[in-house]
Amino acid sequence: MDIHDFKSVVKNYQAVFFDAFGVLKNYDGLVPGITNTFDYLKAEKKEFFIVTNDASRSPQQLAETYHNLGLHAINADHIISSGMLAKEFLDLKVHNGIVAYLGPANSAHYIESSGLHTMPISDVNSNNMENVSVLVFLDDEGFDWSSDLNKAINLLRKKPIPAIIANTDYAYPRTANEVAIAIGGIAKMIETIVGRDFIRFGKPDSQMFMFAYDIVRSRIPLAKKDILMVGDTLHTDILGGNKFGLDTVLVFSGNTLEHQAETRINSTGIVPTYICRDAVVG
Amino acid sequence: MDIHDFKSVVKNYQAVFFDAFGVLKNYDGLVPGITNTFDYLKAEKKEFFIVTNDASRSPQQLAETYHNLGLHAINADHIISSGMLAKEFLDLKVHNGIVAYLGPANSAHYIESSGLHTMPISDVNSNNMENVSVLVFLDDEGFDWSSDLNKAINLLRKKPIPAIIANTDYAYPRTANEVAIAIGGIAKMIETIVGRDFIRFGKPDSQMFMFAYDIVRSRIPLAKKDILMVGDTLHTDILGGNKFGLDTVLVFSGNTLEHQAETRINSTGIVPTYICRDAVVG
Amino acid sequence: MDIHDFKSVVKNYQAVFFDAFGVLKNYDGLVPGITNTFDYLKAEKKEFFIVTNDASRSPQQLAETYHNLGLHAINADHIISSGMLAKEFLDLKVHNGIVAYLGPANSAHYIESSGLHTMPISDVNSNNMENVSVLVFLDDEGFDWSSDLNKAINLLRKKPIPAIIANTDYAYPRTANEVAIAIGGIAKMIETIVGRDFIRFGKPDSQMFMFAYDIVRSRIPLAKKDILMVGDTLHTDILGGNKFGLDTVLVFSGNTLEHQAETRINSTGIVPTYICRDAVVG
Amino acid sequence: MDIHDFKSVVKNYQAVFFDAFGVLKNYDGLVPGITNTFDYLKAEKKEFFIVTNDASRSPQQLAETYHNLGLHAINADHIISSGMLAKEFLDLKVHNGIVAYLGPANSAHYIESSGLHTMPISDVNSNNMENVSVLVFLDDEGFDWSSDLNKAINLLRKKPIPAIIANTDYAYPRTANEVAIAIGGIAKMIETIVGRDFIRFGKPDSQMFMFAYDIVRSRIPLAKKDILMVGDTLHTDILGGNKFGLDTVLVFSGNTLEHQAETRINSTGIVPTYICRDAVVG
Repeated sequence: MDIHDFKSVVKNYQAVFFDAFGVLKNYDGLVPGITNTFDYLKAEKKEFFIVTNDASRSPQQLAETYHNLGLHAINADHIISSGMLAKEFLDLKVHNGIVAYLGPANSAHYIESSGLHTMPISDVNSNNMENVSVLVFLDDEGFDWSSDLNKAINLLRKKPIPAIIANTDYAYPRTANEVAIAIGGIAKMIETIVGRDFIRFGKPDSQMFMFAYDIVRSRIPLAKKDILMVGDTLHTDILGGNKFGLDTVLVFSGNTLEHQAETRINSTGIVPTYICRDAVVG
Repeated sequence: MDIHDFKSVVKNYQAVFFDAFGVLKNYDGLVPGITNTFDYLKAEKKEFFIVTNDASRSPQQLAETYHNLGLHAINADHIISSGMLAKEFLDLKVHNGIVAYLGPANSAHYIESSGLHTMPISDVNSNNMENVSVLVFLDDEGFDWSSDLNKAINLLRKKPIPAIIANTDYAYPRTANEVAIAIGGIAKMIETIVGRDFIRFGKPDSQMFMFAYDIVRSRIPLAKKDILMVGDTLHTDILGGNKFGLDTVLVFSGNTLEHQAETRINSTGIVPTYICRDAVVG
Repeated sequence: MDIHDFKSVVKNYQAVFFDAFGVLKNYDGLVPGITNTFDYLKAEKKEFFIVTNDASRSPQQLAETYHNLGLHAINADHIISSGMLAKEFLDLKVHNGIVAYLGPANSAHYIESSGLHTMPISDVNSNNMENVSVLVFLDDEGFDWSSDLNKAINLLRKKPIPAIIANTDYAYPRTANEVAIAIGGIAKMIETIVGRDFIRFGKPDSQMFMFAYDIVRSRIPLAKKDILMVGDTLHTDILGGNKFGLDTVLVFSGNTLEHQAETRINSTGIVPTYICRDAVVG
Repeated sequence: MDIHDFKSVVKNYQAVFFDAFGVLKNYDGLVPGITNTFDYLKAEKKEFFIVTNDASRSPQQLAETYHNLGLHAINADHIISSGMLAKEFLDLKVHNGIVAYLGPANSAHYIESSGLHTMPISDVNSNNMENVSVLVFLDDEGFDWSSDLNKAINLLRKKPIPAIIANTDYAYPRTANEVAIAIGGIAKMIETIVGRDFIRFGKPDSQMFMFAYDIVRSRIPLAKKDILMVGDTLHTDILGGNKFGLDTVLVFSGNTLEHQAETRINSTGIVPTYICRDAVVG
């Protein structure tokens, strides 16, 4: 297992896609030294994007979380979130009616489109149910799990509407030692119970990468071989990047620790192009 | 699809296993006329058992629910519940420590064994965690889904203890038109997230039928061919009864309606020995 | 369930993506009248693509099958196959070594890239195994299922190389009444046995649609709302098209018959934008 | 991880259930010293059974394989195979017609019952298909995988008959370094494609243990706590034994090597009562 210096890798690419949690930040704040990386990318005029399974907030709100931590290089237009794909789906495919949702209220405001209005699942009742056009799973917070998940199941049993999962993760780290159930895990349970095929947005699915790729190509002419995907998780960041045809870097600042890496790569067959300790340009 | 009269079927067997919900009772109370069936079984000296995926209460408490509805023939020793299998497991396999559980408090009192004491997952903390020997999923009520399910996941990530599912159902009917998520559906989500093999008790698994079969054989000499299993659900009651080698009856008083039966039998390949409108001896 | 005339639908779009089997052709040859549709599309200067889960042949060979049936409007550059995505993956991600494959020899010739050579799994042995860089599941024909599938499993157990599924279908229709196991079903079995995450190409995955979308945008300026996806199968063509943000048409000339459509749409929650008897412009 | 001497464990039990492959024998023949174990068990008048997922041969033929290796203590009536459960199912539940099967001819002769005759799937055709009552998956050998598996799928699509899996294993070791696909893996693929619930016989399912338990109780009075299950595989032998309420021993002479044991136990949560190097009484 060769470990490369991140700068020696990144210098060969014109654009970089970063996973957020475990690469740029963790429970304690920013990964130490990560601001240097963005200084370098700006100086070298390399494009960069944060490609993240997150539908809890708008890109603007996500960018603010970096500013609050002291990383000012990341703006809303650097953020590609799975919530943006959910919003694109609603824009293109749902033209009227109510978007019932599970998640916090401001995640819902972001996905609202012309002709639609959003409603927490708790407010859906027998009077307004006929107007519900779609159900969106946004985040694991902002609703009562017991009553609202049962409501979601019965809504889907009664109406053949699409259900959208705006973050496919099953769990996410909450502290250094603890995880929490993510909305993707909850949605999978409900999909099994109702026997449906839900629509999922998020890594490792290609649509996340395509969305970022389309934007970066609109700014500078480049090809897939010019882009590097950097992540801490084999089965989302690295599998998804590989499948889309990008070169990939696995870093050890998050889910995958150095002593686990070789075993996990061999047992999954998900092989990153490079391995680096972190995404810091020293 | 031949529909048989229940009496013409049941008269050929020495013992009858009944599913509870959808066969003996539903949301409105007893299935009309079902008390006649038990008068007949007693008059004919046929053995009978209620074989039910239920770990929310003790057999005594389950029997009382029938008494309260006016069906007095069913006593605690007629009840075979998946909760009894969970209790047998704890008796045989867990000799000391804390049984952490998800469910109502009185379901936990029932499974307590000598050497063990039970504790709701909400009371597990870093001080007592080292004494937890097993985690039991009993019922979908009696706990906070969000905080307690996250606690359950982190308990299992930290300790290699067995996790027991005392009711394998994914959902259960709550009114004529609505279902609710059952503890088996919740447990399946957590099993997927932690990547473990949990121990499941409940139909269609053979251990439910074996438990009843052992008891009935201790009272009268009979063989599997002398027992009839009656249920309303193909993939639990009928699949499980068939696999165990029993003759089976599908009834239309619960999950499977008459107009759905033929399509469902053909699409699942789960074929009951007989089909009857209900389990009423007229 | 409103049934629309296909011409009244297609006239509102600038480009059309067609599934192949069940839409343009079936076991007996072309769907009667389908050549009219392509005359219309050409007269109206609408773009069209055949978007197909097929890695058994090159686009040139696939186009010839239409010519042989009398449909001359379809050329190789109208074909978007899952085999093309497998080829793109190899071009971008695998730079040297042997591509071991399951499938017919000429499917392998098509995916060969500079620096790579292809080898049927039957020719892999302990001498050349160290040079194998990737395993590709191309088609269900052209190999011995028993010996070659066992060889594939042991290759993957010994080497952490990626495995590529170039056609995700589990089964395909072979006559009006019979299906056959497709390579996607075989690959899924092997993925389960070896405990890996394989890389899949094919509908309903978005990458198929993106590949076609990129090509059509390079010819004419258009957006997703200008494209219509036409298919006979809900969980590949319609689910995939919907997820990518396209308007969709379900037709009855293949997998989904008119009398099944409403039940299937309601039970899956996969709702096409339109329903038409077939894709024929009358 | 405490490692116990096998004799110090086994002396506390009245009966012992052994897995076969990886415990008593492996690719090279008998586990060295294992005949001593059976000398000891006979001298101490302890009951023993071989509990094995194997439907390729009759108990008589399985016993002969031990005799040929020089272990004469094991007779047909010590063998409990998943094939015996398949035979019991046919005896109890299928009273006439043809048993179509996948596997070698002499495995089929064993399961034949009065009123039934067996037929390899290759001989099923449109003339005799109406008489087929059940399909049994016996073993991975004795048939053409490509043509016969496709025949099996189309048989099940046309007739709502039960399908029986007489060995649930997905793979089995063939040499020290290689595995082969087992009939349970093949059957799972077909179950997924046809969308059915097949009936499975084999560890870790309780019915295997119950079958042995019933026989041993008919010979000597004992309870579950008096029985020890010995196996080399956590998710079949140990999980199944634990669930049935037996004390369990994990040995290192087969699938689980000493250096892997602690990690696997912690990651699966499947905890054996004891760990021993092998099942040899020294």
